[in-house]
Amino acid sequence: MELFNKYQFLGCESSFKESEVVLFGAPYDGTSSFRPGSRFAASRIRIDSYGLETYSPYLDRDIDDYRVHDAGDLNLAFGNRDLVLKGIKEFTVDIVKNDKKPFMIGGEHLVTLPAVEGVLEKYNDLVVLHFDAHTDLREDYMGEKYSHATVIRNIWDIVGDGRIYQFGIRSGLKKEFEWAASGHTFLEKFGFSKLEAVINSIKDKPVYVTIDLDILDPSIFPGTGTPEPGGISFVDMMKIISLISSLNIVGADVVELSPDYDPTGVSTAVASKIIRELLLVL
Amino acid sequence: MELFNKYQFLGCESSFKESEVVLFGAPYDGTSSFRPGSRFAASRIRIDSYGLETYSPYLDRDIDDYRVHDAGDLNLAFGNRDLVLKGIKEFTVDIVKNDKKPFMIGGEHLVTLPAVEGVLEKYNDLVVLHFDAHTDLREDYMGEKYSHATVIRNIWDIVGDGRIYQFGIRSGLKKEFEWAASGHTFLEKFGFSKLEAVINSIKDKPVYVTIDLDILDPSIFPGTGTPEPGGISFVDMMKIISLISSLNIVGADVVELSPDYDPTGVSTAVASKIIRELLLVL
Amino acid sequence: MELFNKYQFLGCESSFKESEVVLFGAPYDGTSSFRPGSRFAASRIRIDSYGLETYSPYLDRDIDDYRVHDAGDLNLAFGNRDLVLKGIKEFTVDIVKNDKKPFMIGGEHLVTLPAVEGVLEKYNDLVVLHFDAHTDLREDYMGEKYSHATVIRNIWDIVGDGRIYQFGIRSGLKKEFEWAASGHTFLEKFGFSKLEAVINSIKDKPVYVTIDLDILDPSIFPGTGTPEPGGISFVDMMKIISLISSLNIVGADVVELSPDYDPTGVSTAVASKIIRELLLVL
Amino acid sequence: MELFNKYQFLGCESSFKESEVVLFGAPYDGTSSFRPGSRFAASRIRIDSYGLETYSPYLDRDIDDYRVHDAGDLNLAFGNRDLVLKGIKEFTVDIVKNDKKPFMIGGEHLVTLPAVEGVLEKYNDLVVLHFDAHTDLREDYMGEKYSHATVIRNIWDIVGDGRIYQFGIRSGLKKEFEWAASGHTFLEKFGFSKLEAVINSIKDKPVYVTIDLDILDPSIFPGTGTPEPGGISFVDMMKIISLISSLNIVGADVVELSPDYDPTGVSTAVASKIIRELLLVL
Amino acid sequence: MELFNKYQFLGCESSFKESEVVLFGAPYDGTSSFRPGSRFAASRIRIDSYGLETYSPYLDRDIDDYRVHDAGDLNLAFGNRDLVLKGIKEFTVDIVKNDKKPFMIGGEHLVTLPAVEGVLEKYNDLVVLHFDAHTDLREDYMGEKYSHATVIRNIWDIVGDGRIYQFGIRSGLKKEFEWAASGHTFLEKFGFSKLEAVINSIKDKPVYVTIDLDILDPSIFPGTGTPEPGGISFVDMMKIISLISSLNIVGADVVELSPDYDPTGVSTAVASKIIRELLLVL
Amino acid sequence: MELFNKYQFLGCESSFKESEVVLFGAPYDGTSSFRPGSRFAASRIRIDSYGLETYSPYLDRDIDDYRVHDAGDLNLAFGNRDLVLKGIKEFTVDIVKNDKKPFMIGGEHLVTLPAVEGVLEKYNDLVVLHFDAHTDLREDYMGEKYSHATVIRNIWDIVGDGRIYQFGIRSGLKKEFEWAASGHTFLEKFGFSKLEAVINSIKDKPVYVTIDLDILDPSIFPGTGTPEPGGISFVDMMKIISLISSLNIVGADVVELSPDYDPTGVSTAVASKIIRELLLVL
Repeated sequence: MELFNKYQFLGCESSFKESEVVLFGAPYDGTSSFRPGSRFAASRIRIDSYGLETYSPYLDRDIDDYRVHDAGDLNLAFGNRDLVLKGIKEFTVDIVKNDKKPFMIGGEHLVTLPAVEGVLEKYNDLVVLHFDAHTDLREDYMGEKYSHATVIRNIWDIVGDGRIYQFGIRSGLKKEFEWAASGHTFLEKFGFSKLEAVINSIKDKPVYVTIDLDILDPSIFPGTGTPEPGGISFVDMMKIISLISSLNIVGADVVELSPDYDPTGVSTAVASKIIRELLLVL
Repeated sequence: MELFNKYQFLGCESSFKESEVVLFGAPYDGTSSFRPGSRFAASRIRIDSYGLETYSPYLDRDIDDYRVHDAGDLNLAFGNRDLVLKGIKEFTVDIVKNDKKPFMIGGEHLVTLPAVEGVLEKYNDLVVLHFDAHTDLREDYMGEKYSHATVIRNIWDIVGDGRIYQFGIRSGLKKEFEWAASGHTFLEKFGFSKLEAVINSIKDKPVYVTIDLDILDPSIFPGTGTPEPGGISFVDMMKIISLISSLNIVGADVVELSPDYDPTGVSTAVASKIIRELLLVL
Repeated sequence: MELFNKYQFLGCESSFKESEVVLFGAPYDGTSSFRPGSRFAASRIRIDSYGLETYSPYLDRDIDDYRVHDAGDLNLAFGNRDLVLKGIKEFTVDIVKNDKKPFMIGGEHLVTLPAVEGVLEKYNDLVVLHFDAHTDLREDYMGEKYSHATVIRNIWDIVGDGRIYQFGIRSGLKKEFEWAASGHTFLEKFGFSKLEAVINSIKDKPVYVTIDLDILDPSIFPGTGTPEPGGISFVDMMKIISLISSLNIVGADVVELSPDYDPTGVSTAVASKIIRELLLVL
Repeated sequence: MELFNKYQFLGCESSFKESEVVLFGAPYDGTSSFRPGSRFAASRIRIDSYGLETYSPYLDRDIDDYRVHDAGDLNLAFGNRDLVLKGIKEFTVDIVKNDKKPFMIGGEHLVTLPAVEGVLEKYNDLVVLHFDAHTDLREDYMGEKYSHATVIRNIWDIVGDGRIYQFGIRSGLKKEFEWAASGHTFLEKFGFSKLEAVINSIKDKPVYVTIDLDILDPSIFPGTGTPEPGGISFVDMMKIISLISSLNIVGADVVELSPDYDPTGVSTAVASKIIRELLLVL
Repeated sequence: MELFNKYQFLGCESSFKESEVVLFGAPYDGTSSFRPGSRFAASRIRIDSYGLETYSPYLDRDIDDYRVHDAGDLNLAFGNRDLVLKGIKEFTVDIVKNDKKPFMIGGEHLVTLPAVEGVLEKYNDLVVLHFDAHTDLREDYMGEKYSHATVIRNIWDIVGDGRIYQFGIRSGLKKEFEWAASGHTFLEKFGFSKLEAVINSIKDKPVYVTIDLDILDPSIFPGTGTPEPGGISFVDMMKIISLISSLNIVGADVVELSPDYDPTGVSTAVASKIIRELLLVL
Repeated sequence: MELFNKYQFLGCESSFKESEVVLFGAPYDGTSSFRPGSRFAASRIRIDSYGLETYSPYLDRDIDDYRVHDAGDLNLAFGNRDLVLKGIKEFTVDIVKNDKKPFMIGGEHLVTLPAVEGVLEKYNDLVVLHFDAHTDLREDYMGEKYSHATVIRNIWDIVGDGRIYQFGIRSGLKKEFEWAASGHTFLEKFGFSKLEAVINSIKDKPVYVTIDLDILDPSIFPGTGTPEPGGISFVDMMKIISLISSLNIVGADVVELSPDYDPTGVSTAVASKIIRELLLVL
């Protein structure tokens, strides 16, 4: 009798050593200002991923043909943001030092900061592709410098102008939009019509891709901290993944699924499929 | 320590006196025939509106730059429809007599009747722009002359032919469609392709805008009394608001959010954002 | 192939003519002040009743051995309270005139008023046994004389002092408790310790039993308009039904299930079982 | 007083004898591998269908003008797949032998196999139009030859090459897509751009239409066993129904609504409306 | 950084070889007649068990002091009941042949049949302690001999009179109660007042304990296939476990959690704690 | 027309100056390890409190006869635990310095630490009465000294032995129970049978009462972070409040309602009623 007894994303059955990509969960949502619960995302995604096929008719690729290791979830201390950030960075550094690519499942968006810091240890000319409904460019949020609402600004503090490309943005402070427009980041409102041009301009660079799933319209992805109507469709997301497949992606994350806010389970199914597709282009 | 202690829609912090627009809730759902609960809409919208930003990237305007007073909710007697209608009308008359614009959050659609009656006291050449999935043109509904399913017909009884413009309609009796087509109202099925032309033809008139949120597709707005698949998208609604911004809108309402039927909270977020946008063009 | 094609409560398959008891639904919730939705109770109960057995191990009786007709639901006009009350009264009169017993599934508690009025046409010395969390003794509610919060007072207006017995009451205005205590009704707070004595004192009278299901603790019955913690248990309710089985019950109702507020479905299962038991003692 | 006391889909009030179309439910979900519950679909659809109008503004037809009999639900034994298949086939044969058209509400997709077998008894040149997110072409599933994941292959075993047309497919094993592509079935991935051409080629044939509702995007139809993002819209489905209205449809089914997975009720509303439209073109 | 990467019940970290007890899931719900979904129980329990402590203040024991192996879930073919029963039996035989005790998490109650059969291979004088709301003594159910509603009768077919003890029973056909009362099984209605006496009479026998969680009142355990109000409390269940701790329990199961029907998650928490306690007395 | 426009708990309409008790919300849940969301408690309680009456039949008192000020919610920075603790302490100090009593609605249990610290500024012989399912006595939790799981230990660090009384405790590490038993705190497992004796022994002392609502059984209070079956009933809680009414209570809090985990709304109703009763004995 066959047994199901693994805590793994569908098809991610390689050992750490033999793998090219290392998947891991970062279940932290401590700075979420509206609806918390993204801590449960990785766990729920693993279970529900078995509702998918390993084969993608979009990309005509099969995850069984790739070597991915699922390391499980980091044990992060709720309530101590600094320790959380340190733990994620160290784990990411360990992956890149072993010449593998990190693939993180959030958690809230702040977890992207230490993951990018980790990848920068190896690739100091890293470029960040950011897909999101929100600018995430505040200098501080409710007095805090490190938050889900400041994370891209925090990354900019490290990488500086011209290294961050933002798509799908449809919510933020007026001054965030102005700050971006003054040349600090490339920011496209609402959609991704200029993604192809951007891809051409960065195709020689190592790229980190961060997908805040709330870029999707809440009709297809209600299970998130701050649902913002007016987002892109799932088919749009498939197009984005197809477009970026030519890039040299050296790390990626998918964040902000808050599964308990979607009792239909569709949000988790959407996240799982996006992860499958993204793994197939890594 | 800053305190949060107001029962107000985001950014609507002006006093009645200094305001141009007066927001209020009309929590009545007594004639709903399918799923009641729109009585909870205004209360839930106020709380959840704090998940939004005050700045709209669609309109490049900020609600903090406008003077809106949030008067709270009318205390309406459930079970006595006539008293409810009277109360709403009197409150609306009070607003227009003070040279302010009423902005009502329903409640079911019947609440539009007394609000229009109130506005008519000042603007007797008023034109009504009606966005909805349903015709609402029955002469009576289950024997009742005043109901959410008769409300536009009730308004026609007062204003007569050529004063009502209906968009997005996709459900009704055959004879309602025929009655409209015989010239009593302008009615566009499914969409709003002729809205621009209509706007040109009424641009000198005072306009009342009533938005039954079930015009939206239930994928993005499931939390309503009678969900009707095949509706317009949120982006369509942003286009509508942009189009009507050139009009002389003297009153408006947003009705038929039934928040308890959407456990994801997305419907409330959608309603809140539409209210923000509509306030910004009033 | 056997077919399931009836809209009936489990085992209530007699024709009107051959029946002793006539079950019907009164789907009205127009004066509910907090959470509406009891209009859906009868429909949901019928469907879910098929999850029960026809045999009661509590009473050692089987519903298949009794003759009950399920007439379906009255088509009531939402928004017109007076017509609703008139319709229920007429239907009840029709039942008692045919020497059958009415068994009504609410709806909100106001529907009890016309049902009692109907039964009084035949039994003018009727006594009312009232099980509820709430006093329902207000003179008016938000200015309205006829409401779910006034219904027992409305009945008192007709039958006068000494004819109403209230049990399980745990919420009301101070002056309602005082009014009852001054001799107008018999009212026991919280429980039913004096039910047996009351039963002895009324055993020669025709009795109408009205059960507002919110007498139950919301742990076992969350699906109701105004949940009041501190109620009786399901086993208590079985005891009550056993106790009253010796009475000459000539009419009964079960009201205030609001099924959509209990996604587990337990409230509907509870209501169904109470109805089965009550039918077995009628 | 009018009574609501029928267990019927809206407007399907003809007797078996006078009807042209016979509607029935097949509440079986025994081979569902992910989320069961489609057994509840027919029951929920009947109740909620009364939230619709009988008139379709899409087709400008009214269901009151057609003769449809609603036979209720088959009483199927859970746990014994073979008996279930036999029961459905016999019931379908009975319908076609009486020169009527069967219209089945599932249940899971496996119920289509016996319905097609039944229709084949009369129309041995039957063509099958299949709308679905999934290929359903496996030879076996978890060792089982008869399953929701093999049903179209099971039908192919009977009808052979060139008789099955599949649209909207976006999930399956690589080898299923390859098997189809080798000429066994016509299969269009993702959409239905070639439906019109297919219709022209089969317009002289008797056609069975099977709609697995998960062809719809889960934004509008979350209540299903295996939600697959990236599906078609409700408006697309209206187009499909309009396109196929010229065909000689001799049987049809609508399967895989699992209503309890959509607490908003929208999925049931969507299914109900599709059934109304499909009845209007039969 | 510590990682969470195991698919295990809390504290069940021993290997098969070193363990005394082997836990496994049997995710089958193919004969459920009302609400399916117990297939998800084992998976959900494992994840949520980490919300518990390993220490029981009821028993003053800690699960970390015991050697339990969690084997994962059996891969069972939905739709083929006979294969499912065979697979469970073989797996159980394998456990008892290795001198370990099986502890199964259902699934629906039918899975108890093959588990008991497996244990009987080693202990032919086995006694069965059965805790349930339902008799489960039908000869057949909807024509089927093997079903969740017949399972105890199926076991009786093997072990015969005087070997089965049933507690908490509160639902069934009249003839099931009569059949039990004629001496075939010991059956206590509603509670477990005679459990202590029974324990004394069987203390020299090997005992199999099967707990259908619907013995609990649905107030504390709504997430089950057929909720039956009037059940025992969680504290009662703790007493039962304490009472049976003196027995020679050689196998056990906990069945009929259907987690998706309880959105609060409490049912899963209850099941997890009962499993912890039962493991501590095995 | 009367308006509802206040963000206040029912009946708490006094100004800060004229009040004896100051109610405020502390919406922080940053160290919750299982299910977050207690940040929403105060907001939801305020809205739903209007479903209650101001009169308590338990205590025969009416909240309209008392002077309570509702200050609203503190604006706390998620992600910075230290700032949160500081803010709550300062606000509490401000209340006690003005000779008023603080009444805090959490938030998670850690918020009790700064509130007690604030009250200690005035009453240095303060005694703490602690009602909870959990010991909350860990020295650290996942490496963190300040957490919802350490809060009572943190308070002990300040007040020392013999000042803390714990009731209802049914979950914790073995060593926490042992630590308490060695004389550091008074701890009663499961219930509160010794509460009366404790009350007699502390009746001359100023008392702070902290109620973690998860002391209640999850049947009546499912909406909490870590539901623990086996808790006390609502009626037990009424008894506790009645018992402690003779004490000199100088501050109180009610924590750990996580309303989104109870879609029935009952948990919020329970919390609201407990707050009403507790206000009436302050």
